[in-house]
Amino acid sequence: MRMVDLIQKKKRGEALNTNEISYIVQGYVNNEIPDYQMSAFLMAVYFKGMNKREIADLTLSFVDSGDRNDLSAIQGIKVDKHSSGGVGDKLSLVIIPLVASAGVPVAKMSGRGLGHTGGTIDKLESIQGFKTELDRETFVNNVNKYNMAIVGQSSNLTPADKKIYALRDVTATVDSIPLIASSIMSKKIASGADCIVLDVKVGSGAFMKSVPEAIELAETMVEIGKSLNRKTIAVVTDMSQPLGHEVGNANEVKEAIEILKGQGADDETTIALTLASYMTVLGGAFKDFDAAYSELSHVINSGRAVETFKELIEIQGGNSKVVDEPMLLPQSGCHIEVKAPGKGYVSAIDAEKIGVTAMLLGAGRKKKEDVIDFSAGVTMVKKVGDKVSSEDTICILHTNLKDYQEAVEMVKQAYSFSNIKPKPSKYVYEVIQ
Amino acid sequence: MRMVDLIQKKKRGEALNTNEISYIVQGYVNNEIPDYQMSAFLMAVYFKGMNKREIADLTLSFVDSGDRNDLSAIQGIKVDKHSSGGVGDKLSLVIIPLVASAGVPVAKMSGRGLGHTGGTIDKLESIQGFKTELDRETFVNNVNKYNMAIVGQSSNLTPADKKIYALRDVTATVDSIPLIASSIMSKKIASGADCIVLDVKVGSGAFMKSVPEAIELAETMVEIGKSLNRKTIAVVTDMSQPLGHEVGNANEVKEAIEILKGQGADDETTIALTLASYMTVLGGAFKDFDAAYSELSHVINSGRAVETFKELIEIQGGNSKVVDEPMLLPQSGCHIEVKAPGKGYVSAIDAEKIGVTAMLLGAGRKKKEDVIDFSAGVTMVKKVGDKVSSEDTICILHTNLKDYQEAVEMVKQAYSFSNIKPKPSKYVYEVIQ
Repeated sequence: MRMVDLIQKKKRGEALNTNEISYIVQGYVNNEIPDYQMSAFLMAVYFKGMNKREIADLTLSFVDSGDRNDLSAIQGIKVDKHSSGGVGDKLSLVIIPLVASAGVPVAKMSGRGLGHTGGTIDKLESIQGFKTELDRETFVNNVNKYNMAIVGQSSNLTPADKKIYALRDVTATVDSIPLIASSIMSKKIASGADCIVLDVKVGSGAFMKSVPEAIELAETMVEIGKSLNRKTIAVVTDMSQPLGHEVGNANEVKEAIEILKGQGADDETTIALTLASYMTVLGGAFKDFDAAYSELSHVINSGRAVETFKELIEIQGGNSKVVDEPMLLPQSGCHIEVKAPGKGYVSAIDAEKIGVTAMLLGAGRKKKEDVIDFSAGVTMVKKVGDKVSSEDTICILHTNLKDYQEAVEMVKQAYSFSNIKPKPSKYVYEVIQ
Repeated sequence: MRMVDLIQKKKRGEALNTNEISYIVQGYVNNEIPDYQMSAFLMAVYFKGMNKREIADLTLSFVDSGDRNDLSAIQGIKVDKHSSGGVGDKLSLVIIPLVASAGVPVAKMSGRGLGHTGGTIDKLESIQGFKTELDRETFVNNVNKYNMAIVGQSSNLTPADKKIYALRDVTATVDSIPLIASSIMSKKIASGADCIVLDVKVGSGAFMKSVPEAIELAETMVEIGKSLNRKTIAVVTDMSQPLGHEVGNANEVKEAIEILKGQGADDETTIALTLASYMTVLGGAFKDFDAAYSELSHVINSGRAVETFKELIEIQGGNSKVVDEPMLLPQSGCHIEVKAPGKGYVSAIDAEKIGVTAMLLGAGRKKKEDVIDFSAGVTMVKKVGDKVSSEDTICILHTNLKDYQEAVEMVKQAYSFSNIKPKPSKYVYEVIQ
């Protein structure tokens, strides 16, 4: 087998067989196939796509390139959740205690963020004392005992995907649905989940800009799940503006607590309940979505959800007082209020630009080695559809940096205004199962 | 400027501007742009193409990456000829003396072959004593005095094209018309020609398999010529079977001499006269194609053409006796006659397979360092349309190798037979100017 012939085959639009896909992935990981052949292949995939069988084969090759988490010591059906990534997405913090409250085990492995804000692991570390490195035994025991545990992701899951992703990033081959779908699904499968619920974001702040694209990605991932015997449900949700009001780390934890107390913003509450409902249905706790949604809403309203989150913090060594006294979370030294330029309605908030603003304030990492300022971030006082007058505060920037002018400029660019009240957008566009 | 953004731009089908193309080519030659980005870019060009202006810019960037031959010391209009490559193509040997006979200077730079048989330079070196390395002064003086000289190509012409071609070869990005056209034209322009006649081959033995494809390539190259102020004519000619009867080196020289004596095969004689006619028209020797064709036919029939070839051999130090006594050319020790399998007509000869046969007999190079056996090759006694009976010799293999069985098998696969006499194909399909 020669890589040049396989590139040629894909270039002509032909399907590669299982052996050929495995040859490519293994050869690349073993440095037998050079970067320049891989990048030409990836570009051919961008233009010619892959069929369902090829995508499943590619996913499995990624899984086989590294370790698999063995979760067999955990009782029950292990359901994992994945978000395709958005700005202000603190839903995992809400979903872990919600699902655990329903008796479905959540053995969550999560990455650190390399982007506008930290990842779920970083956000939790903004709680004083919260440990995200648990040894295997503790992790398994905690899930069996409390139905929940969260750790940072093992470094040797799907190394092929990691190496290929780095190459895609510099060769303009990121935006290919077969490549995105196999990358996401391989990580979930290597993580050891029995069932998977996917939150596919769509809109200005997401990777998928249009609903049809997002549905295509969702369908592709559900198909992979089916092929590889993992029950998978994908929910296409709105990311036309950031989720909720808080973007950062500590402030997102604060907002997650509000959601768990039943005081959260509508968009986040609805989407968190939707995802958690599908997870608990897959986990066998409820007979259908409606039953799950109703019961989980009750879990929130009864105060049980927030108590479970408090429990999670305690189990993992954190200071659970933050739940009742959010001021105990890291606070920045400087708060800058940004005012509306005049009278009207907020017509759009560019989520990407809000993300960059948070990063400029210190909330994210540009490089792996960068240190996150947990207290930095953006509070969006006004969101799309809100009426504003001049001198109304539209948002507040939190930072410890002295030089925040660029962030102020950026956040001003993120907001658009109009004289007409914009039509509200849906929170959930489609569910694929 | 970032290469990843330029790849993205081309991937979306947008045109790159002059600066962007120059950035890519220069950056690649200077090792600032890595292979893996270049190969992704080339694959995007394969799928999205380039417009006329981009192709001209790419050509010029290739030219600017290396030396240019300065032919200004040569009087008159310098016309160069290029063939897109075929099997049994000895036309340059015929065309140099023909065009020179008409008073148009031919300052020919030619490459060595890396393929089934040697290149023009290798073929000439099968004539005892023929020198293909002339210093600049001798080269210029010879053209000014005798209207002709031929040397091996300088190594620092279009190094960017050379580096990119090597990458295309291993990344399945060879068959892209903008890339082929700019590669060929950049070499001709760097060689210093004022006018260019292109022989674009089409058929089983050529790179372009269909006439529409060949015409597209021809038109693209003529457009490049126009953009860069080089009068260019492209002739699309048949390569559905090898040219003439001889494929190899010394045997091709022998056949070239026959053409120059007016005893050559129809296909080769017609195509050589056609190309030479356009060259002499561009060189200002004749008012139009018909006048040129008629006069050059007379040059052959009068014996002047072969005398000029004899002169070329003598000027460059070779033994010109080979013209009258072709047995003085290298002869192999072993000749294998291959017989027809039964009664019928030769319906096809796969030129590619005849080429591989010649290579297996010792006539070509697999690697740069390989030594060519000038005496090795194939004589096709029967060609497409010829009637055969069983036990008729269809071809003769010439070699000094003992192990020639693979070559015999290959040449048998090259021939196809039929009970119906096939329709003869055209020699010249189209002329683009």
